[in-house]
Amino acid sequence: MSVVNKSAHPFDKSRLDALLNRRFFYAPAFEIYGGVAGLYDYGPPGSSLQANIIAEWRKHFIVEDHMLELDTTIMTPAPVFETSGHVARFADWMVKDTKTGDVLRADHLVKNVLQSRLAGDREARGLAAQPKDDEKDKKKKKKAKTVAVQLADDFVKEFENILAQLDNYSGPELGELCRKYDIRNPDTDNEVGEPQQFNLMFASSIGPTGQHPGFLRPETAQGHFLNFSRLLDFNNGRVPFASAQVGRSFRNEISPRAGLLRVREFTMGEIEHFVDPEDKSHSRFHQVRDIVLSLLDRHVQVSGSTQVTHMSIGEAVDRGIVANETLGYFLARINLFLIKIGINPDRLRFRQHMGNEMAHYATDCWDAEIENATGWTECVGCADRAAYDLSVHSAKTGQPLVVRQALKEPVVTEKEVPEFNKKVLGKTYGRDAGVLQKAVGEMDQAQLTRLKGELAQGSATISAEGKEFSLTPDLLTIERKTFKQSIREFTPNVIEPSFGFGRILYTLLEHSFWCREQDIERGVLSLPPIVTPTKVLIVPLSSKEEFDPLVQEVSTKLRKAGIFSRVDDSNTSIGKRYARNDELGTPFGVTLDFASVQNRTMTLRERDTTDQLIGPIDDVIAVVTELVQGTIDWPAACQRLPAYDGVQAVD
Amino acid sequence: MSVVNKSAHPFDKSRLDALLNRRFFYAPAFEIYGGVAGLYDYGPPGSSLQANIIAEWRKHFIVEDHMLELDTTIMTPAPVFETSGHVARFADWMVKDTKTGDVLRADHLVKNVLQSRLAGDREARGLAAQPKDDEKDKKKKKKAKTVAVQLADDFVKEFENILAQLDNYSGPELGELCRKYDIRNPDTDNEVGEPQQFNLMFASSIGPTGQHPGFLRPETAQGHFLNFSRLLDFNNGRVPFASAQVGRSFRNEISPRAGLLRVREFTMGEIEHFVDPEDKSHSRFHQVRDIVLSLLDRHVQVSGSTQVTHMSIGEAVDRGIVANETLGYFLARINLFLIKIGINPDRLRFRQHMGNEMAHYATDCWDAEIENATGWTECVGCADRAAYDLSVHSAKTGQPLVVRQALKEPVVTEKEVPEFNKKVLGKTYGRDAGVLQKAVGEMDQAQLTRLKGELAQGSATISAEGKEFSLTPDLLTIERKTFKQSIREFTPNVIEPSFGFGRILYTLLEHSFWCREQDIERGVLSLPPIVTPTKVLIVPLSSKEEFDPLVQEVSTKLRKAGIFSRVDDSNTSIGKRYARNDELGTPFGVTLDFASVQNRTMTLRERDTTDQLIGPIDDVIAVVTELVQGTIDWPAACQRLPAYDGVQAVD
Repeated sequence: MSVVNKSAHPFDKSRLDALLNRRFFYAPAFEIYGGVAGLYDYGPPGSSLQANIIAEWRKHFIVEDHMLELDTTIMTPAPVFETSGHVARFADWMVKDTKTGDVLRADHLVKNVLQSRLAGDREARGLAAQPKDDEKDKKKKKKAKTVAVQLADDFVKEFENILAQLDNYSGPELGELCRKYDIRNPDTDNEVGEPQQFNLMFASSIGPTGQHPGFLRPETAQGHFLNFSRLLDFNNGRVPFASAQVGRSFRNEISPRAGLLRVREFTMGEIEHFVDPEDKSHSRFHQVRDIVLSLLDRHVQVSGSTQVTHMSIGEAVDRGIVANETLGYFLARINLFLIKIGINPDRLRFRQHMGNEMAHYATDCWDAEIENATGWTECVGCADRAAYDLSVHSAKTGQPLVVRQALKEPVVTEKEVPEFNKKVLGKTYGRDAGVLQKAVGEMDQAQLTRLKGELAQGSATISAEGKEFSLTPDLLTIERKTFKQSIREFTPNVIEPSFGFGRILYTLLEHSFWCREQDIERGVLSLPPIVTPTKVLIVPLSSKEEFDPLVQEVSTKLRKAGIFSRVDDSNTSIGKRYARNDELGTPFGVTLDFASVQNRTMTLRERDTTDQLIGPIDDVIAVVTELVQGTIDWPAACQRLPAYDGVQAVD
Repeated sequence: MSVVNKSAHPFDKSRLDALLNRRFFYAPAFEIYGGVAGLYDYGPPGSSLQANIIAEWRKHFIVEDHMLELDTTIMTPAPVFETSGHVARFADWMVKDTKTGDVLRADHLVKNVLQSRLAGDREARGLAAQPKDDEKDKKKKKKAKTVAVQLADDFVKEFENILAQLDNYSGPELGELCRKYDIRNPDTDNEVGEPQQFNLMFASSIGPTGQHPGFLRPETAQGHFLNFSRLLDFNNGRVPFASAQVGRSFRNEISPRAGLLRVREFTMGEIEHFVDPEDKSHSRFHQVRDIVLSLLDRHVQVSGSTQVTHMSIGEAVDRGIVANETLGYFLARINLFLIKIGINPDRLRFRQHMGNEMAHYATDCWDAEIENATGWTECVGCADRAAYDLSVHSAKTGQPLVVRQALKEPVVTEKEVPEFNKKVLGKTYGRDAGVLQKAVGEMDQAQLTRLKGELAQGSATISAEGKEFSLTPDLLTIERKTFKQSIREFTPNVIEPSFGFGRILYTLLEHSFWCREQDIERGVLSLPPIVTPTKVLIVPLSSKEEFDPLVQEVSTKLRKAGIFSRVDDSNTSIGKRYARNDELGTPFGVTLDFASVQNRTMTLRERDTTDQLIGPIDDVIAVVTELVQGTIDWPAACQRLPAYDGVQAVD
């Protein structure tokens, strides 16, 4: 088996981008109309790769944990998002160029300018400015230009500190930073105005009269919450359970310019795990307890550092770094999923949100961040939304969104209960009776006990709403009564893992891309077979009709084995066809030539090594089936079939 | 094997609706907020049923015919739909109640009122008024009330004629019908105003400045067309090929009130088959030629009838009833697909659009209509959009959306070609030279031949833009030249099958629903295993821990066999659990009881007959696997395992 050097050439984003564009993984939507920032279409390999990632996600999460799948609408009437808080708070801070009116995202502006000043400082001090980043910067209009100016040592410290906790700043604080450090629009060198909030939801209106405002959902979560009672019923009234949904969401980003990493329309997968707030343990936590994650907690970030800690999730939960078992279970399962589909574990970390950074609904939140050419990118969020959503929707609609649980042992409590003699009450206080009743009704147990004592003495006086009431035992009695509670009613908490498939897909493509040592022009995507668009390429030597029956036979046999194959009978050389499919990530190829027709043999090629084996057609199909299913690897396959030296005997 | 009478009780839509609501197949979206007309959420069984229908669709169409799958954005900038014609013409006609301002869809109003007058006429004549329809009508506010009034025979004829071709009327014509027949808002008895167009697209705006209007797509098709050049390139420049896409689309319906049959947001599947306009044959047409369809062509409808003709698709294409083989191929494939997933073939017909009814882009169109309680509903459209879309987008953007095909034999043509002597031209006519050149450039071959003859005589005179030009051979020569064309360039035509999955899903549920003869309260959904949410229900006698290992074993073995199962260990009787799963359409159930623990036997129950068989666990798994895969049917299973009489020996 050949040894492959995948890092002979340093990663070059422009080469990857060119490949993805050429092979139509994805492309700017409405390209022939000039495109629209933040909107992308997936072509055949991209949509297939995404579909395979989602299929694996369904297996890994929904099927494995018996989640209840949902499919709810994108168009949402405004009252829902008014209640959820999105109308008021789902916004980013933007600043306007004071002269041109250009709109910039405030946090991105601060980040770009400070990063470029730090780079300029390193250059001035004669330290290596990160060359790759610089090259990229030059191509992006809005990136701040790097000028070699040395900064005072204090400034370097300050800037680094700001950048480490950038997500923690409020809008006004970002404005202050702009003033303090004279941060300007790098395109024009003009000052920028005060940060203003811009709501990220796309607005529309429902129905022909224009009277019903609606928004496109920015997440699928509300659809789960609004159906909570139905889901609970479907689950026979029991918690914990999780609902799950894959679907489109929309965010009207201020100025998206990072490819698939920041888009205005995206496919996401969301899980809402409903759990008893008093018991966030997880019955399967023991299965993941020993999995080691790279953790970056909020304390480390606030201290100005981004140093991760490698720790088992069991230890992290035991030590209170991760809040509870259920949150921990999902972090570990997310880790397993991302690695399974091909994300490089060394470039994956879990970062905890800092206080100000958390979404308005969250009480704790960890992001799975994946490193790529633009830095660390949030690809999965995992938030504990507590009881926030169910509570606000219940309060707004008056619908109880609660779990009612039969208690094993009824809880018996004793309470002082006040009772008025209605007749005497009316006669004595007339229209003020209500005020008095309200005042007594609002008393706590201690107050009632005290009042009871006073009444036992003969009379008592209380004041309410500026009035004095004199009370006697014939007007009011207070008695100790026993209550038996056999049902416990509670609003469940929600743990929410939320996946952005476009970001996962893009970072996976980066982690999979390399160029052949001997020819930098020959790019390869080493995607795992589990997610590759095509598993096996069938390559007939030519499009001559005599190959048709064999092509048909091989393709049918592969389909029966559950392997998705494609035929490439285009009029180019076999080498070019393989090169094209290396770019598409196709892990295996089988070639049918004249020897195949005569001897019923077939060669089998592996993408990364380009090694070829040869054998009888059925043997090759058996081996490639196992390779795709992952029951054997390529070295094992090399033991099963002889190497092919490029020459076959043909009579 | 027991015989089952599925038609003991007449179909009752309210019972089906109650079942679908109770089991959360789907429910009004934002229900706790009062709901929004035309928006529905799918619960676990509904989303799973839809996912299975879509998975089968992908296999049946995309995989089988090697289509190129796409995933394009929903949010679309306005210029795209301005070009496609949707901004101007994707509209319904609405009328307003002249007093209340209520909005009604004009064609629905005419239909409701005329239908109810015809029903009143039948009643007055002592003929049976359709009782089921009447009951339903009473529940629906907007349906016109049926009053027993006899109509003149002429009116009956006229009304029936209007209803048979209702889709053929323009807005002004609908307004005329309202005036002529005094059609009023049935709710208020008020007159209605002139029909006005209401555009069905949801509008929004893209970006923070509000300067870029956008629409939510009402179909996925434009996403295919805009990517045509990329798709063609991906297919190595060759046609025919098809792209396919499953995704959400949006239509802001005027007043939707027909459950899943008319909604504002829906999942659709669209195929765009790009084909040479000069050759619309299909290489696989011979495989479907003999399939017999129920056809209702436009001539029959215009004559006022709705009588279908049963005809093989081969004959229909041969006789020109269906325009071409490719259209015919898809009609037959659509027919096969719908029957495969469980649609009753006797309630399926293909109806051709009449002239005025066709979408603005179509040159021929057939709808697959499925009969249900509300009548015949379009569930799949199959249109020949000709070169419309590619042509308009190409003209607008200046991008060539064409196929370039190498001709086998170059086409050689001879042409007269004019050539000016630029020097003499400039000297003679100065600034008017351009006018002259343009005039000559626009001449056709006949004119050039004539001019050449005149020049051969010495001189000629032509006039252009009010000026006279005298021409001589030293100024202009015209020569016969030979041209060789080796590339043919053409805009492909598009055949578009377009599927509304919600409508298919609802009609399938209607066709599958029945109530047990002995108990009308016990509803059953006889969905085919291929689409049922759960294939096998595992029912442990109780939730006692001793059943756990067996439940685990059976569920793991089924999963390995690729069969999706669910465990129901809720605290109700086995009978109730089966009844619940009959409502969910689960075709098979296996029961684990104390005998299972002791003897390793298991019973197998079939949903429709409720018959039970018994056998060793592994035998039962083998049989149920074949049942689900469709390789054996229930009678065959009854030959493989002994019947279970309800008693098992337990020591």
